[in-house]
Amino acid sequence: MKQHKVIFYPGGEIANAADGENLLRVAAAAGLYITASCGGNQTCGKCKVIIESGTIEGGISEKLTTEEIKKGYRLACASRIKTDLSVKIPVESQLSDKRVLEKAVSKRLLIPETLKDLRPDYHLEPLVNKYYLKLPQPTKEDNVDDFSRIKRELRQISNFEDCSINLFSLNKLANTIREANFKVTITLLEENKIKPKIINIEKGDKRDRHFALAIDVGTTSIYVRLINLLSGEILGAVSDYNAQAAYGEDVITRIVYSLKGDGLKTLQSAVVKTIETLLTQILKDKEVQREEVSYLVIAGNTTMMHLLLGITPKYLREAPYIPVTNSSVEIPVAKIGLEFQEDVYQYVIPGVASYVGGDITAGVLGTGVFQAEELTLFIDIGTNGELVLGNKEWLITTSCSAGPAFEGGTIKHGMRATLGAIEQVEINKDYEPMLITIGHKPPIGICGAGLISLVAELLEVGIISQNGKFNTEIDTPRIRTRDRLREYVLVFAEQTTIGSDIVITESDMDDLIRAKAALYAGISTLLDNVGLSVSDISRIIIAGNLGFHIEIEKAITIGLLPDVPASKFTFVGNGSLLGATLCACSKQMWEEAKKIANSMTNIELADNPKFMNEYIAALFLPHTEEKRFPTVFKRLTGNA
Amino acid sequence: MKQHKVIFYPGGEIANAADGENLLRVAAAAGLYITASCGGNQTCGKCKVIIESGTIEGGISEKLTTEEIKKGYRLACASRIKTDLSVKIPVESQLSDKRVLEKAVSKRLLIPETLKDLRPDYHLEPLVNKYYLKLPQPTKEDNVDDFSRIKRELRQISNFEDCSINLFSLNKLANTIREANFKVTITLLEENKIKPKIINIEKGDKRDRHFALAIDVGTTSIYVRLINLLSGEILGAVSDYNAQAAYGEDVITRIVYSLKGDGLKTLQSAVVKTIETLLTQILKDKEVQREEVSYLVIAGNTTMMHLLLGITPKYLREAPYIPVTNSSVEIPVAKIGLEFQEDVYQYVIPGVASYVGGDITAGVLGTGVFQAEELTLFIDIGTNGELVLGNKEWLITTSCSAGPAFEGGTIKHGMRATLGAIEQVEINKDYEPMLITIGHKPPIGICGAGLISLVAELLEVGIISQNGKFNTEIDTPRIRTRDRLREYVLVFAEQTTIGSDIVITESDMDDLIRAKAALYAGISTLLDNVGLSVSDISRIIIAGNLGFHIEIEKAITIGLLPDVPASKFTFVGNGSLLGATLCACSKQMWEEAKKIANSMTNIELADNPKFMNEYIAALFLPHTEEKRFPTVFKRLTGNA
Repeated sequence: MKQHKVIFYPGGEIANAADGENLLRVAAAAGLYITASCGGNQTCGKCKVIIESGTIEGGISEKLTTEEIKKGYRLACASRIKTDLSVKIPVESQLSDKRVLEKAVSKRLLIPETLKDLRPDYHLEPLVNKYYLKLPQPTKEDNVDDFSRIKRELRQISNFEDCSINLFSLNKLANTIREANFKVTITLLEENKIKPKIINIEKGDKRDRHFALAIDVGTTSIYVRLINLLSGEILGAVSDYNAQAAYGEDVITRIVYSLKGDGLKTLQSAVVKTIETLLTQILKDKEVQREEVSYLVIAGNTTMMHLLLGITPKYLREAPYIPVTNSSVEIPVAKIGLEFQEDVYQYVIPGVASYVGGDITAGVLGTGVFQAEELTLFIDIGTNGELVLGNKEWLITTSCSAGPAFEGGTIKHGMRATLGAIEQVEINKDYEPMLITIGHKPPIGICGAGLISLVAELLEVGIISQNGKFNTEIDTPRIRTRDRLREYVLVFAEQTTIGSDIVITESDMDDLIRAKAALYAGISTLLDNVGLSVSDISRIIIAGNLGFHIEIEKAITIGLLPDVPASKFTFVGNGSLLGATLCACSKQMWEEAKKIANSMTNIELADNPKFMNEYIAALFLPHTEEKRFPTVFKRLTGNA
Repeated sequence: MKQHKVIFYPGGEIANAADGENLLRVAAAAGLYITASCGGNQTCGKCKVIIESGTIEGGISEKLTTEEIKKGYRLACASRIKTDLSVKIPVESQLSDKRVLEKAVSKRLLIPETLKDLRPDYHLEPLVNKYYLKLPQPTKEDNVDDFSRIKRELRQISNFEDCSINLFSLNKLANTIREANFKVTITLLEENKIKPKIINIEKGDKRDRHFALAIDVGTTSIYVRLINLLSGEILGAVSDYNAQAAYGEDVITRIVYSLKGDGLKTLQSAVVKTIETLLTQILKDKEVQREEVSYLVIAGNTTMMHLLLGITPKYLREAPYIPVTNSSVEIPVAKIGLEFQEDVYQYVIPGVASYVGGDITAGVLGTGVFQAEELTLFIDIGTNGELVLGNKEWLITTSCSAGPAFEGGTIKHGMRATLGAIEQVEINKDYEPMLITIGHKPPIGICGAGLISLVAELLEVGIISQNGKFNTEIDTPRIRTRDRLREYVLVFAEQTTIGSDIVITESDMDDLIRAKAALYAGISTLLDNVGLSVSDISRIIIAGNLGFHIEIEKAITIGLLPDVPASKFTFVGNGSLLGATLCACSKQMWEEAKKIANSMTNIELADNPKFMNEYIAALFLPHTEEKRFPTVFKRLTGNA
């Protein structure tokens, strides 16, 4: 897709944008906050910018005067970028000029051009290989059977003692080789070099048509990538919500559901259906035949993997919390209901514990934490926060239940990160908020990233104090009491489509504080376990969808992430999918994934007194101890 | 079952009989021919014997006078043996006293008490093993997943690098180990020692409940044996006709049928249904659960194996006659429609060529031909005659199409060896026949063994001459001309239930001569191929159902088998089933079966000029060359 370069003035920040992308969105992603109190919905008319050079589509609105339009004013939220642009953000549209530069440096993305860029030791080596054979035609003198003829020829290429064949290939063997004039491509499963297995036979030379799928099965969303095994290139990706969500938002609810009647079967069918739909779509889009896909690599948390395989997750939530399997398992996908031939396997990336699954192993693999020279902290933020600490010498891991606050659960107007969710908030000195919603739709609720953003702002401008309670001295119609609870009105009913005000209450604040305290206490306990402290950490890698969308500074402000310079943070996005992709492309990476899972030591936080103390100390914004968050305390004191 | 000893006088021959067995049948099996022109149907009253001591049930008939009954006369065909017996065969009931002793020595049976008796190098070593594990219970400190817990314990017993598990076991793992208080039995597929696979998990110690099935899939019949893998004991056997027979009697007809529409599917379903029914029956009879069966070993001819696996046999009948596979293949039986869990495999014994299948490999394995010091000829007689010649140094093999004469095809009153088929014939000096039918039912036709018996007798008494034509000088109402063809009436219509005379025609004689000529020419050509002759053969092993029922001397008389002393012949019965049984009990034997199949050199007889010459020279009874059959020629000349 065409890429354009956008330069924003007066700061001179440069952002890359895909053709047709929304200008407000690009500015926000670059950390440039443009006033847009309607959430990018083209109704407030506040996100005025001046297009100094280049071409956009749209941008004209009745909110602009004829004169403004003549001068080049456009609404950023209505503009689609079509060429390189120079854009001036007028003073009246700048929400907070002091933050512009800070933001620009904080999103250091670990998204490589190629897998080789990511992991220098990576080399392409599929888990299953194709060989092209030109067989001698049978004669009266050379009348060995078809299978032996193939084995004889294969032996020239791949050194093995014996070779087996599956029924799928046997069934079509005779006609395929004859119709192809004895020139065929063999797909060979060579996991076991002594006795590889022929799992497919195709007419002619089909070595250039060889694909795998890398799949991340998340509790909320499922991502499927199509990989060309000839080049290691990612041909495309699709994602959708996990259809299991209809039976519960988080893993615990799903485990409970799975134990009732046909619950397990129902949940398995739901996730399989989502995967089947997604892969059908991507194969169709990229014109790849199902038979050209040789295997799938799947990563997910331990509960998701149990449900996918149809294995009871019952003992995951009963002490001492034992998974049925956390080892790598290789199961034919046809067995779980995906429509592939009998020997298309799913390689399930192994996990470490009931709440540190293969998605974390994959993330550690993908980000190279296990090869790091420097002390690295890997954080996957979601309902559960999973943490990995270590370097190439050692790795320890833990998980802490943050509760559903980050996923929108328990929060009065909380919601998942879908269209219309408020994901970024800025509050000006008049206590008025500016919102950005996902998809620039009218706001309907607050997602996890939005909640963190909002609470940090409430704290920064002094609407709440460090214990999460409202400052009663502020006079604004946005702060009020309803049902005996203090609340801040983020959006009044008339600006929403839900017909009621969107608010955050003191109770919501308490939930968020508990959630962030659990995560921070997990980090502290993990460090304490090896006698280290936050200052010893050289690098923090943030994984997970929520992780990708949160604003680091704000997460530090509320005490969710440790108070270290923004330059130490890196974002990996979907680390699980990245690891699965690496494994799909490289047998060596798959072997490494197994080693990583084996080498990680799991620390249980349940009943851990250190964790409990840390948790209690963290039930404050950002923390009870000033020395833990010096820069935040300094700023808050400065503001005060 | 109780066994009784029966002594026959005046000869003093001793025969063993099962409790309740038919006395006429036991006498005939011992080579003692008792007159019984009705075929053992209790209607001619000729098979009178005197019970001198011991007890029988039945035996009384209106064909006996009151005085005869008082003297101890009974009808042999109506007597069921209940104790040890002394039986006198009165002169009037003796058909031919000169043959009584000859018969007694000719049936040297290669049916061992134990497999160890058969093959001294045999030792019990199942292809799949069970291990009993007492797992430590999980604790907060020892909280590895269930699968890893099992692997850790298994590693103490079985040395491996990695271990896999199938979905069947994964699905029940968690509940099984907990319900069994962490004491479980693991079934381990260890073909690959580096990475064995857990294919089942049972509660408690189930090592003593471990079974396999050995199956011979014949064109006509299917045999299933249940084997206790703890002891190597054969617990029972069942057999039935192959339901494919409804679609054609011989392999060629079935191949043709398989190529039309859904023919292949239909034939596969038919054979699978027969096997499923048989194994269901034997498991029920022996109170063995399906889950306790870990694998199946299957032997059969190449066509049968293709049809069983659902692989097209098309190229088996098109030059250069190439099977899709003759290699050992290991396919999950669930894939062909047998109702077992996913990793119960069928080990298909490998064959050598399109018409020398795994049944022959199994026979060679079972009879130890490949370990013989002396030159051995192995013959499996059926529609196709399969021959193996050699010893521990070398083995060559071939097959010759005898046509359907031996299976009853093309013969006017030919039939398969079922109830009512005439299987033994003696003709006295008045040209009157004595018949024994299968099941002692009224005669309805002539099976292969009966045909050989009949033609040999016709030749011996001079009714036909050596070219298979009738001697026109003999005056008996049994020789006549119908539809311009000379024929001999074996049974007149009133003694049958088919409403017409049972005859053998000169045309039938021609068919038989062609069939026996093909087999004999095959033997001669095979010997010639290695520069040897009949006199070099130390031992001839006769396999196959027809082989088991034919009378050696009569087969030599017509020139089907070479003219060597009867003492050189051994009968193995179902060699295929014997070999499959050995493989089921012993991994070493299974490995040997693969080596045998690889080591046999196949000689093609089609278009072989030597074979054609031999064939033409053999179109005579017993042969055109007197020196090939000296004892037969001597006897025929003596008789003349």
